[in-house]
Amino acid sequence: MTAGLPPTSEFDTQTAVTAQGEGRYAADLAAGWKVGGGLNGGYLLATLGTAVRAELAERGKPDPLVISAYYLSAATAGPAEAQVGVRRDGGRVATVAADLVQDGQTRITALATFGDLARAADDVRTTAVEPELPPLEQCVRNTDAPPEVRTMAPLMERFDMRFAPESAGWAVGAPSRRGEIAAWFRLHDDREPDPLSLLLVVDALPPVTFDLGLMGWAPTVELTAHVRARPAPGWLKVRHATRNLAGGMFEEDCEVWDSSGRLVAQARQLAMVPRGA
Amino acid sequence: MTAGLPPTSEFDTQTAVTAQGEGRYAADLAAGWKVGGGLNGGYLLATLGTAVRAELAERGKPDPLVISAYYLSAATAGPAEAQVGVRRDGGRVATVAADLVQDGQTRITALATFGDLARAADDVRTTAVEPELPPLEQCVRNTDAPPEVRTMAPLMERFDMRFAPESAGWAVGAPSRRGEIAAWFRLHDDREPDPLSLLLVVDALPPVTFDLGLMGWAPTVELTAHVRARPAPGWLKVRHATRNLAGGMFEEDCEVWDSSGRLVAQARQLAMVPRGA
Repeated sequence: MTAGLPPTSEFDTQTAVTAQGEGRYAADLAAGWKVGGGLNGGYLLATLGTAVRAELAERGKPDPLVISAYYLSAATAGPAEAQVGVRRDGGRVATVAADLVQDGQTRITALATFGDLARAADDVRTTAVEPELPPLEQCVRNTDAPPEVRTMAPLMERFDMRFAPESAGWAVGAPSRRGEIAAWFRLHDDREPDPLSLLLVVDALPPVTFDLGLMGWAPTVELTAHVRARPAPGWLKVRHATRNLAGGMFEEDCEVWDSSGRLVAQARQLAMVPRGA
Repeated sequence: MTAGLPPTSEFDTQTAVTAQGEGRYAADLAAGWKVGGGLNGGYLLATLGTAVRAELAERGKPDPLVISAYYLSAATAGPAEAQVGVRRDGGRVATVAADLVQDGQTRITALATFGDLARAADDVRTTAVEPELPPLEQCVRNTDAPPEVRTMAPLMERFDMRFAPESAGWAVGAPSRRGEIAAWFRLHDDREPDPLSLLLVVDALPPVTFDLGLMGWAPTVELTAHVRARPAPGWLKVRHATRNLAGGMFEEDCEVWDSSGRLVAQARQLAMVPRGA
């Protein structure tokens, strides 16, 4: 690293893309984001978001406002390509189609609208209630997770997560069965949150089905994230909940609150109930 | 109409598409679905869904499981074309990209995963609570809406909606300001609900911002709908809520419950706060 430059975070380094021209961006997916049968969906989404930001760099629309991703096949560590096409640039916002492709297979196909959150109106009329979490030191650390969970999810080493004790029962075989997991969240190297990292955060916690006693990987079919504000520095609060497990699928709602108490992202995914559950 | 054939509903007639080959389908958008500055987004979504179903007809995947639509420009009555491309057919489900194009402009670009809800697992573990609505006869009918609302929204004539009285205050200048609208819902010709018509239903009620006292058209940026079960015949209950109006945008969550008390669809959209509000 060149002296005098700020250190580069793991997240920035490992979601980086290199322009290849004509909307194509080379990525190198890192093995540390592995979980279950592939790389974490939030990591892939943030990488794809990085390519979209690059493609829109000249247009003054750096921030994802909304992105919808369909997960078509499991990604593995190694080279991949993001392909971004602008579908409409309406001035204030631009909508793109973006694919993440690897070994000739589409891993994710997505649509997204980007804009500039710094230019958003300053009205805030949030009636959603910020999750109450015990102080950090009273929470359960992800690094306390049982070895079998940590082996299945090297992903967890990327984060400093502090689970509300009532959300962590699954780790000791006593899930609350409320269908809710809430935790404090930071990247393990203290890289501060921004709109792109929020795309990772919305799919970073263990599947909410753990809290229903359904251990195992829950493949995402589709995930849509709304990024509603640039997050303040510091710890985030992340809450996952499901209210409709049926027909072999479940919805997982995610809220991300920043250290100023603002609801900065809302996401919902449709995922498959773990097999054998 | 030929004697002996069942009458064809308005919904089926006006969302019908004609195959043109190579994933292209001709549609004729009907003026009766107009609201505010264009045709209703749910009507367009159902029309696009009809084209996707047609494209997948040989594959045994008749039902939308999830669809994400980005609204790029306002549609008008008249000819339009749906363009459907299969991105992946994984056996149980297929994912498509689908556009609705009119006058050379893309109105909606969408991604969707279709499957067969009749083959879904029969587990139902819903913890969401069905909305409580007063009996039909104690509710406020959409046909009682003030003339200025009915003029702005010919759309409303397509439906038989019965609003919970506490959700209808906006119609007489006294919104509840809870950010919630709930109503009984049927198509006005009693056409029974199915997974495709649910794509209409999730965007059929007035914008939830009416209940915040923000009258006016709230353009949808993106809408994602999960269809979780084939609905039973009869009245539906539809509930819209918003909990995060901020930065000039708001999320609108929609639940649709069928007459058997099952949560059959969940949708969320990101929309723009009406101008001047």
